[in-house]
Amino acid sequence: MAMEAEARPILDTLGAVETDGSPPLPARFFTARVEDCDVVVAVNGKDARHGVDSIGTEAAALTTLEVVRRFVPDVLISAGTAGGWQSRGARIGDVYVSRDRFVHHDRRIAIPGFDAYGVGSYPAMDVSALAVALGLKQGIVTTSNSLDENDDDRRMIATNGGDVKEMEAAAVAYVADMVGVPMMAVKAITDLVDHHTATAEQFEANLAMASGRLAHELVRVLEFLGASGGRKRP
Amino acid sequence: MAMEAEARPILDTLGAVETDGSPPLPARFFTARVEDCDVVVAVNGKDARHGVDSIGTEAAALTTLEVVRRFVPDVLISAGTAGGWQSRGARIGDVYVSRDRFVHHDRRIAIPGFDAYGVGSYPAMDVSALAVALGLKQGIVTTSNSLDENDDDRRMIATNGGDVKEMEAAAVAYVADMVGVPMMAVKAITDLVDHHTATAEQFEANLAMASGRLAHELVRVLEFLGASGGRKRP
Repeated sequence: MAMEAEARPILDTLGAVETDGSPPLPARFFTARVEDCDVVVAVNGKDARHGVDSIGTEAAALTTLEVVRRFVPDVLISAGTAGGWQSRGARIGDVYVSRDRFVHHDRRIAIPGFDAYGVGSYPAMDVSALAVALGLKQGIVTTSNSLDENDDDRRMIATNGGDVKEMEAAAVAYVADMVGVPMMAVKAITDLVDHHTATAEQFEANLAMASGRLAHELVRVLEFLGASGGRKRP
Repeated sequence: MAMEAEARPILDTLGAVETDGSPPLPARFFTARVEDCDVVVAVNGKDARHGVDSIGTEAAALTTLEVVRRFVPDVLISAGTAGGWQSRGARIGDVYVSRDRFVHHDRRIAIPGFDAYGVGSYPAMDVSALAVALGLKQGIVTTSNSLDENDDDRRMIATNGGDVKEMEAAAVAYVADMVGVPMMAVKAITDLVDHHTATAEQFEANLAMASGRLAHELVRVLEFLGASGGRKRP
């Protein structure tokens, strides 16, 4: 997870306990148990220079590799808040799980081979049964390092798909693909990209509510994964 | 360095020898000696999914943290090819060293505090004496994950400065700042952003020549740094 405000409700709900950090990374790690499974909640932590949460793809890639090396997870989940589109049926507070692939919409590299690398298209684990069982929407998650969306972004999203727009999942998926760990996303909608209100304004107004909705559904996702055979520890 | 084609001339010039990789990262590491200093050339390596060099900020951040942990460098250098602007005096084949700071021009986050985090502004080590001694141009290096430049990029570059446009340095500087290691860039110009020819076309036409120029000047930079007191090993 990228932001402490996004993580707080799920940490409270799980009664998660903080464990050692991994200097020099600012990431924080919390552990909990759900359905006899070990759950590690990794939060990217505060940027030392700017004093804000370490959002975006670089911090997400660094934290993910550290999680993989330290905790050897069976499944990786990129969880957080996101934007959606009214035109694609999204409403504020909806919780989506990922579908099919993770793409970038701000990496334009017009050289054959590099163009596909720019998009990424890292695989999402198949969670269609989970989505049906839990009544969650499912969509392709598309990532950039900007909160807004410009014409180039819109074009990339139209070409490569995208139902859920956020700032980390494709970087988590990049590392997950590199290490061969199945990966999914759970994202709660804070803002509608195609609404006349500015994204930043919607985001700030709905962050707390959406993070609560995220925690509620994330527990159900963890319980579902645990019941269907996560790592058992005696 | 991001691309094998960028790295090959300097590896040959230094007679660098490949050492162990760091799985699961695709990065490759080569060692050499210059002026009684140990030099490690880290190249981001081929992306396993797409078969191309791992360009861009995620791979650069992961490689840099691995270099810091494995080799404990005294100085980090982001070396490679880049775009420049005719309007700012750049010519194809020019070799620049960094000045003042490293910025991102594709991270637009319109929330107070996060806006500055988006730009980054990580410190560049002061290499003005080196630039004068070696007769190299000096400029602010600005980074994005796209080879091209759109209107938002142009606006960010105008606001936050940028003489040299490339795809990794700010991510290297992000990690360098996190770990407190001085960092500079050496970048050879392959393309002029404000030229009527498409960036990708210029880049492909000039990559080999610029990588040769880069190797030539990079050796001089390493010799200068070594002579002014790098890490001595008996």
